[in-house]
Amino acid sequence: MTTQDYHLTLRDVGSDRPEYLETIFSLANGHFGVRATDPISGNPISGTLINGFYETAPITYGEAGVGYAKQHQTIVNLADLRHLTITTVNGHLFTASKRLAADLNLTTGKLTEQYQARSQQGETIQITVDSLIGQNRDDFWAVRYTLSADNYAGPLVVSKSIAVPAAAEAIASADPRKTRMAGLPNCKTAFTAPNLQRYQIQTKQSQLAVTLYLRMNTPAGTLLNYRVDLSDNQPHVLDYQAYVGAVSEFNTIDPVTPALDSSLEELADDNQRFWQKVWRHGEVRVGGNPSLDLAIHYNVFQLNQSAGRDGRTNIPAKGLSGSGYEGHYFWDTEMFMLPYFIYTHPQMARQLLQYRYQVLPQARERARQMGVEHGALFAWRTINGQEASAYYPAGTAQYHIDADIAYAVGKYYDVTGDWDFIAQCGFEMVLETARFWADFGTWHQVGDLRRFEFLTVTGPDEYTALVNNNYYTNRMAKHNLELVVQLADDLAKHDPERLMDLHVTPADLAHFRDLAAHIYLPYSQDYKINAQDDSFLSKPHWPADRMTPDNFPLLLHYHPLTIYRYQVAKQADTMLADYLFPDDLDPEQLKREYTYYEGVTTHDSSLSRSTFSILAARLGDTEKAYRYFMDTARMDLVNLQGNTADGLHLANLGGSWLALVAGFSGFHVQAGVVHVTNHLPQELTALSYRLTVGKSVLEVNLAADVTRVRLISGPSVHVSVNGRPESLIAVTKN
Amino acid sequence: MTTQDYHLTLRDVGSDRPEYLETIFSLANGHFGVRATDPISGNPISGTLINGFYETAPITYGEAGVGYAKQHQTIVNLADLRHLTITTVNGHLFTASKRLAADLNLTTGKLTEQYQARSQQGETIQITVDSLIGQNRDDFWAVRYTLSADNYAGPLVVSKSIAVPAAAEAIASADPRKTRMAGLPNCKTAFTAPNLQRYQIQTKQSQLAVTLYLRMNTPAGTLLNYRVDLSDNQPHVLDYQAYVGAVSEFNTIDPVTPALDSSLEELADDNQRFWQKVWRHGEVRVGGNPSLDLAIHYNVFQLNQSAGRDGRTNIPAKGLSGSGYEGHYFWDTEMFMLPYFIYTHPQMARQLLQYRYQVLPQARERARQMGVEHGALFAWRTINGQEASAYYPAGTAQYHIDADIAYAVGKYYDVTGDWDFIAQCGFEMVLETARFWADFGTWHQVGDLRRFEFLTVTGPDEYTALVNNNYYTNRMAKHNLELVVQLADDLAKHDPERLMDLHVTPADLAHFRDLAAHIYLPYSQDYKINAQDDSFLSKPHWPADRMTPDNFPLLLHYHPLTIYRYQVAKQADTMLADYLFPDDLDPEQLKREYTYYEGVTTHDSSLSRSTFSILAARLGDTEKAYRYFMDTARMDLVNLQGNTADGLHLANLGGSWLALVAGFSGFHVQAGVVHVTNHLPQELTALSYRLTVGKSVLEVNLAADVTRVRLISGPSVHVSVNGRPESLIAVTKN
Repeated sequence: MTTQDYHLTLRDVGSDRPEYLETIFSLANGHFGVRATDPISGNPISGTLINGFYETAPITYGEAGVGYAKQHQTIVNLADLRHLTITTVNGHLFTASKRLAADLNLTTGKLTEQYQARSQQGETIQITVDSLIGQNRDDFWAVRYTLSADNYAGPLVVSKSIAVPAAAEAIASADPRKTRMAGLPNCKTAFTAPNLQRYQIQTKQSQLAVTLYLRMNTPAGTLLNYRVDLSDNQPHVLDYQAYVGAVSEFNTIDPVTPALDSSLEELADDNQRFWQKVWRHGEVRVGGNPSLDLAIHYNVFQLNQSAGRDGRTNIPAKGLSGSGYEGHYFWDTEMFMLPYFIYTHPQMARQLLQYRYQVLPQARERARQMGVEHGALFAWRTINGQEASAYYPAGTAQYHIDADIAYAVGKYYDVTGDWDFIAQCGFEMVLETARFWADFGTWHQVGDLRRFEFLTVTGPDEYTALVNNNYYTNRMAKHNLELVVQLADDLAKHDPERLMDLHVTPADLAHFRDLAAHIYLPYSQDYKINAQDDSFLSKPHWPADRMTPDNFPLLLHYHPLTIYRYQVAKQADTMLADYLFPDDLDPEQLKREYTYYEGVTTHDSSLSRSTFSILAARLGDTEKAYRYFMDTARMDLVNLQGNTADGLHLANLGGSWLALVAGFSGFHVQAGVVHVTNHLPQELTALSYRLTVGKSVLEVNLAADVTRVRLISGPSVHVSVNGRPESLIAVTKN
Repeated sequence: MTTQDYHLTLRDVGSDRPEYLETIFSLANGHFGVRATDPISGNPISGTLINGFYETAPITYGEAGVGYAKQHQTIVNLADLRHLTITTVNGHLFTASKRLAADLNLTTGKLTEQYQARSQQGETIQITVDSLIGQNRDDFWAVRYTLSADNYAGPLVVSKSIAVPAAAEAIASADPRKTRMAGLPNCKTAFTAPNLQRYQIQTKQSQLAVTLYLRMNTPAGTLLNYRVDLSDNQPHVLDYQAYVGAVSEFNTIDPVTPALDSSLEELADDNQRFWQKVWRHGEVRVGGNPSLDLAIHYNVFQLNQSAGRDGRTNIPAKGLSGSGYEGHYFWDTEMFMLPYFIYTHPQMARQLLQYRYQVLPQARERARQMGVEHGALFAWRTINGQEASAYYPAGTAQYHIDADIAYAVGKYYDVTGDWDFIAQCGFEMVLETARFWADFGTWHQVGDLRRFEFLTVTGPDEYTALVNNNYYTNRMAKHNLELVVQLADDLAKHDPERLMDLHVTPADLAHFRDLAAHIYLPYSQDYKINAQDDSFLSKPHWPADRMTPDNFPLLLHYHPLTIYRYQVAKQADTMLADYLFPDDLDPEQLKREYTYYEGVTTHDSSLSRSTFSILAARLGDTEKAYRYFMDTARMDLVNLQGNTADGLHLANLGGSWLALVAGFSGFHVQAGVVHVTNHLPQELTALSYRLTVGKSVLEVNLAADVTRVRLISGPSVHVSVNGRPESLIAVTKN
């Protein structure tokens, strides 16, 4: 595949609301994100978001209970780096502006915008804003403002500083997906030189600190009161760079001022190298629909922008594009986003899993709080590893996150073969989650059958809570318990001491094996399908007269008790297990299940459609697969959920990649064999993508009558194309 | 039975902690209550509680949801009426005191206490405090302080005023049974004469107002700086009276100062007449255990003190003896306390039901909020009729309160025959609750069977939440639907227009009949018992290693998710249904159920033991019945739950009366026949009590070999004694 430039512009997006555009054109690098706030009119609640930089506040409950999550953790909305104060020499302040154009180059990461700014007295000027965020080096953001005359062509005074955001009031909202504002942190700002400002921030409760610098790079420029004269009718260039330091636990100022003097062009070149690597390892192209091709590039671009890369941060539910869901990490990472990284940037995938490993102590503590004496229970939503979900029926009760993380570790190992990580961290996570299931589950004797069950849990479907034997949960726990045995066998061969250090005995493994074999998987004899849980299928369907669009999403219109008593699902649940374990059921059962669960699913969660797309493809219903995919692929670009202003739906971005790769091309790795099956919908003329399995870089090309897998580099790979083992291709080494 | 004096003294109670004694010796009259706070050392958080006088505050949720209860309603802790400020002429303030004796005369309602007060400089005096609260007239409280020399025998300066309580901080507690403090109301106080103070209180949010007056009745006495000289070594008597007006919605001052000049003796005489009537209609005596006999009298005394009598108030969970549970009304009234009133003071029972009728509009509104389009859903906990439960799984999900209220209406009608109330109010409540069930329930086809089910509900057992087909709930709903049909038949005969006004059609009634016939009642074929719900019996039992006393009550030691996944009950649930519907099951099944459910019940709720006592008696296990009864009968007097300081366990007080009457004497009225069965435990030599059925006053006398029912007054009654229809006694009219 040849590299080609992809540009996202205002013509490609679904709304011109400033808050929406701020999200869509946000730049980020895993460490921090800068929303594309209008540099003149600004937005008091949005600015810079640093991954893992959060404030805590006590959670207040109407009626508190033992073991409830104690502290909110809310990502801090920091100073708006993009703001520029411009006045005429007569003191006329430019307060309004209009975004005339925006161009996000997905190949280079550069954002170019065009504004017309207007003073209160009606003078107008033109501003071009070029900005980019460091990628190979993740601690800086650079901007160039090019000022030109419009109806005003006289002298201007320009000031720029990192300002404390305007006091924002706490936003109380019944919508849990909205931004929650934390108290403002302590800020200290100082101009250490006319062209350099230092900005220190320390949170009050969580005791985290970060230091920012802002430098004006225009020769002889000053941050404050810099004069520009437009009367020459020439464009005037103003260059700035911001440095965003690492999050530290103490308010320490590094005495060394960071180097902030590269030219914008140098930085852009360096950035371009990063993005070229991203696309080289993970290019994905769709033929027959340019806007869709663009959307996929955008999704992959934002995935890469959002993932923490330091092993101490993860991917917030909204990335670093907005503060919805408070900047928390959920199971979204492991189940919807990690596959992309595992297959294209395994080192980044490892760092994301490393984050979970470093919060394992908190997860152990949480298991104790939940009355489970062994193992670890990862927090449902968190930044610092402690549970921050204030509504346990759709929070802590989603125990499945434990098995999700274990699944991801197993998948990472399967694809990358990174034994080093397994031995150091991965096995311990799989072990501690397996121990949790072993202790949390309970035996139930039914006739001659001994069933190992998990009671009072909530599965992925948050419209059904506190049920017994959620199929997804049980199936995933079974996998968790099988995986620990499998990995322990490997460890016994390669590193038996590690097993001893972790106090794993052969009896433990036999016990895990026994439990896994006895885990109950609910099945309906009536419908011949796996049952979402013990009672789901016998509940009545959601009333037909409450099916009009203004009733959705249900969670914003009905009390949970009303929703829970119906057979209605927010998102893929049993379907998700079916996607993950394709060998569990034959195509007929899959078809029955698909038809059944599709009929009771509202897709009120952005995590739902990608799974339905993948399974429709697997079932050969490529038209339906395409329809679901189109909703996932362009969800934020068309503002499908209506709340993109709060941030991108990151899991869905990952899901859209999965829908292409695991869906339309049926890609999966099983027992060392790469499987590809052509499910290309007729609306697409071609699909091609690159990914890496082990050390082998593969390129997959699909068209109506083409299914081709090429080895780009690395050792031989066994491939099965369209289910024909005979088609295993001989692989030539480069 | 002859009237005899019962006195509760410090020797009869289980603790000498002041907060505990304040509860135990509290005086109330349904309108307001006065905790027996030490008059010298006081207690900033406890004073006067007015039934239905509450403040609201927004409920804050960690994560809010649609339809959640919006406002806390918290009974206001008002000024301490008992406080007295005493200094020596040298300004030595008496700050400490010791309660040397207390005597609560249950026959007259008079409380006499003896204190030794001590100044900071060590001077001591003796104070006798005689106090009583109006009963026939419920708007006053009177007190007499008799001051005598102790080591100090000189002149004193005495001041008394209704003071604003010291600012109390909001108490945040993980224990939902604790007092929650509301913000302090606005208070305005004025001395309208040297011996008269007016005290106006208006709540800030709920906009309720009440006016208090305090008057010094010692001839020529002044409230402030009244001089008493103990140097004559004579006791000095200081008389005061307080007036507590009705709760009004506006801050209006009645220009007429209430009459507050009766002598303490006159008031005591009037009060004694009230209590004589109470005992005449509801005397209950136990032979063989004087302390138990006293306890029963105490319980009945406090029941009478606590019940609102104006049709606009009810019985707070802690009566007016403490502000635990925020002064809220629960199902406790209908299911545990109302029977006593129905049988002994039907007019008071009617007023309690009238309260529910006047909040019917709020209940209709609540049903709408819960997605149910017809009927009414009464609030689980409330003062003003709106839902105030901030934890819906053990709040709003306890839909059974609807059927409980309907049951109480039916029971009231059965026993009193008060058709007037049924036609005016009762039928409408039964109708609206029936309509709720009809709309809330859903059909479930199981083979050939059509079952009408109630899903995602919580039964009485709060250790099991959000389950399907809770037996108690379903059985009670069935009764509710049967009752509406039965009452409608009567109404059709007597008042067909009322039926039309309420839009009740024959088709509606046929529908209710059909639903009632199809309501699913879960039954376990394995155990041959009614199943508490669809999943309860298949859950594992609570782990044996968590059975030590320091794990109880479970709700204060375990996360709800931990408790809910075990087969463990906080209180009688299916057992309660068995008690209410004795004809539902034969003695063998009852025995099996009793044995089974007793094994999984912790009795962490004070509402549990009385039911187990009644059923043990019915099963003939009088020894066990006695043991449970002893825990209920003396629960607060021995501080069994350890939290009597927060207020009396009112429902349990009612339960102990039920245990005697419905348990030991097997009393119930069925199809117009009064049934009495002798289940007297051998620890008791005798049991006798009075009650009223219809217009007939009955006296029941039990001893080991005696079972006698006498008609004291009123028309003939059919009686069945010890199951012998032949023993129907001829009744002589007085």
